[in-house]
Amino acid sequence: MTIGIIYGGTRPNGNTEALTERAVQDLPVEKIYLKDYKIKPIEDQRHNQRGFNEINDDYDNILDRILPHDILIFSTPIYWFSMSGTIKLFIDRWSQTLKDPNYPDFKNAMSSKKAYVIAVGGDNPLLKGLPMIEQFQYIFDFIGISFEGYVLGTGNKPGEIFKDKQGLAVAGQIQKTLKANR
Amino acid sequence: MTIGIIYGGTRPNGNTEALTERAVQDLPVEKIYLKDYKIKPIEDQRHNQRGFNEINDDYDNILDRILPHDILIFSTPIYWFSMSGTIKLFIDRWSQTLKDPNYPDFKNAMSSKKAYVIAVGGDNPLLKGLPMIEQFQYIFDFIGISFEGYVLGTGNKPGEIFKDKQGLAVAGQIQKTLKANR
Amino acid sequence: MTIGIIYGGTRPNGNTEALTERAVQDLPVEKIYLKDYKIKPIEDQRHNQRGFNEINDDYDNILDRILPHDILIFSTPIYWFSMSGTIKLFIDRWSQTLKDPNYPDFKNAMSSKKAYVIAVGGDNPLLKGLPMIEQFQYIFDFIGISFEGYVLGTGNKPGEIFKDKQGLAVAGQIQKTLKANR
Amino acid sequence: MTIGIIYGGTRPNGNTEALTERAVQDLPVEKIYLKDYKIKPIEDQRHNQRGFNEINDDYDNILDRILPHDILIFSTPIYWFSMSGTIKLFIDRWSQTLKDPNYPDFKNAMSSKKAYVIAVGGDNPLLKGLPMIEQFQYIFDFIGISFEGYVLGTGNKPGEIFKDKQGLAVAGQIQKTLKANR
Repeated sequence: MTIGIIYGGTRPNGNTEALTERAVQDLPVEKIYLKDYKIKPIEDQRHNQRGFNEINDDYDNILDRILPHDILIFSTPIYWFSMSGTIKLFIDRWSQTLKDPNYPDFKNAMSSKKAYVIAVGGDNPLLKGLPMIEQFQYIFDFIGISFEGYVLGTGNKPGEIFKDKQGLAVAGQIQKTLKANR
Repeated sequence: MTIGIIYGGTRPNGNTEALTERAVQDLPVEKIYLKDYKIKPIEDQRHNQRGFNEINDDYDNILDRILPHDILIFSTPIYWFSMSGTIKLFIDRWSQTLKDPNYPDFKNAMSSKKAYVIAVGGDNPLLKGLPMIEQFQYIFDFIGISFEGYVLGTGNKPGEIFKDKQGLAVAGQIQKTLKANR
Repeated sequence: MTIGIIYGGTRPNGNTEALTERAVQDLPVEKIYLKDYKIKPIEDQRHNQRGFNEINDDYDNILDRILPHDILIFSTPIYWFSMSGTIKLFIDRWSQTLKDPNYPDFKNAMSSKKAYVIAVGGDNPLLKGLPMIEQFQYIFDFIGISFEGYVLGTGNKPGEIFKDKQGLAVAGQIQKTLKANR
Repeated sequence: MTIGIIYGGTRPNGNTEALTERAVQDLPVEKIYLKDYKIKPIEDQRHNQRGFNEINDDYDNILDRILPHDILIFSTPIYWFSMSGTIKLFIDRWSQTLKDPNYPDFKNAMSSKKAYVIAVGGDNPLLKGLPMIEQFQYIFDFIGISFEGYVLGTGNKPGEIFKDKQGLAVAGQIQKTLKANR
């Protein structure tokens, strides 16, 4: 069992990363910082006769790092009550991969994975982050990933997450589950 | 009263644009196609002492086209149960504008605007698009925009929106309201 | 194809009933006013060895009126951002019927039905009524009913629904669909 | 600081009650079991010239027990993806109390209170219970109560809640907060 973390934030050692660390401590993980990659927006060519044009960016490299893992953690700051634009750009591109002859097994590979969402926001995320959780549920249902759990942490300024005892406790429970299933 | 349409899609003359046309026909509008611009992801520097670095892209140009309008229409295909990544990139950047000395009046200007959301998706958008609507509500509440209405249209292949009688009827009602308040 | 309307309101000729009339005009319907019946709260005895006690009220009579219909319309005023307590009492009892030897075919019978929700509220129902719609989706998914559509009408004082052009338009579209599938 | 618990369930010592016990242990509480009272459905007479008829049931007795407390815990099993019909009947009646000359201070009294929601369900409550949480948010916003937190516990058969380590951990955090603010 291996774990890949997909980070959607931009602040080094931010609250989201700290909360995620709590969930995976003492576990071997591969950390994928989307901010270090160039991801272009999808161009919707699903209905073009010739299909999608190849896109020249880092998307496939990210995908190649993610696909080997059994468990994915989508770790994102909450920007404007949803995942960061960067994570959204990445997920939008799945529509192209679903038709990409270079990834014929994409949906099948994804559907054997389990996922967690770890998200931190400053404006009442336990309530205002709920639509985002519902969207992740729809996303995971569509691609076949099993949605195993989530943490909505509260924090704004750097380090504030360490005051969020509830968020830390839930992340700690996830860590126990991950360890038990190792 | 003037109307600015912020298009988040990529397909020329797509279903979302067609449904939006229904809502604004015979009305003067300015159409802003985000796909024609370069928008970089926000880098969260809200807590940096020196604040945000200037970003070299087209974001300010988009903003300058939007700010003069009284009514904004956020017109987006539903990608993965939410707005397109491109629209999300644009909205994420508002966090920087809120601290930008070049736009000292940004929040005040936004809070005098009214907004509509027009979104089209292929996978049961009247149910699976609802979290996105709730997010727009939170977004508009935060910035002070009055959320006047929305249409969730159903369509996947090009032209399918014209079979969605309910979506077209709701767009038609919005058009009547816009005309009456001209 | 026959239609049963389950009314959860208490006001005779209220806004919810008026909006529902728009959706079913010229169609043969059976109207079931829950307020005319006595429905006791469920007592959760799913895990009792001897199962549920028989309850002496009108619930079975309501069920017997509903089961013959192909299409059910759940028609409720929005009280406190959800369906009326009376409709909730009725639906809660389905848990007992699912184990009732007198209704061995209950789930099967329900799963061949189609349903609409028509709900009217005074406090921004197009936004604040959305969690209720999501709940109906979960309810219908669980019992196997196909959720065909909904209208969220806006109205508070008697007659105000007639000013809600959008709500009336959507109800009108439902009526056309019902007529076409007659 | 005193705590009133409003129980909406029917099973003695059920999972919801056990999870609630975890949140209030070692704290003085008053427990109000709605199942021990007779609550009639509201009859919507807000727009009648003569206002509401007096209703002859136990509702006022419940209210009189609740009003003295600073903190209210709404403790309900999740029936059909929402609060129990009994709790809904109780809350629906607030519309009458808001116009009741015997309770002229009702809204004011409520708006000084803090509330928690503790709910347990068997069908993925961490996702399918979210619309209910959004409804409680709207309810509390309307009446002015401050929504301080919630726990969504997972359990179906008697005692299963004790396997839900995450739910117990969150309830434990609430208990610490309540104790600290005593």
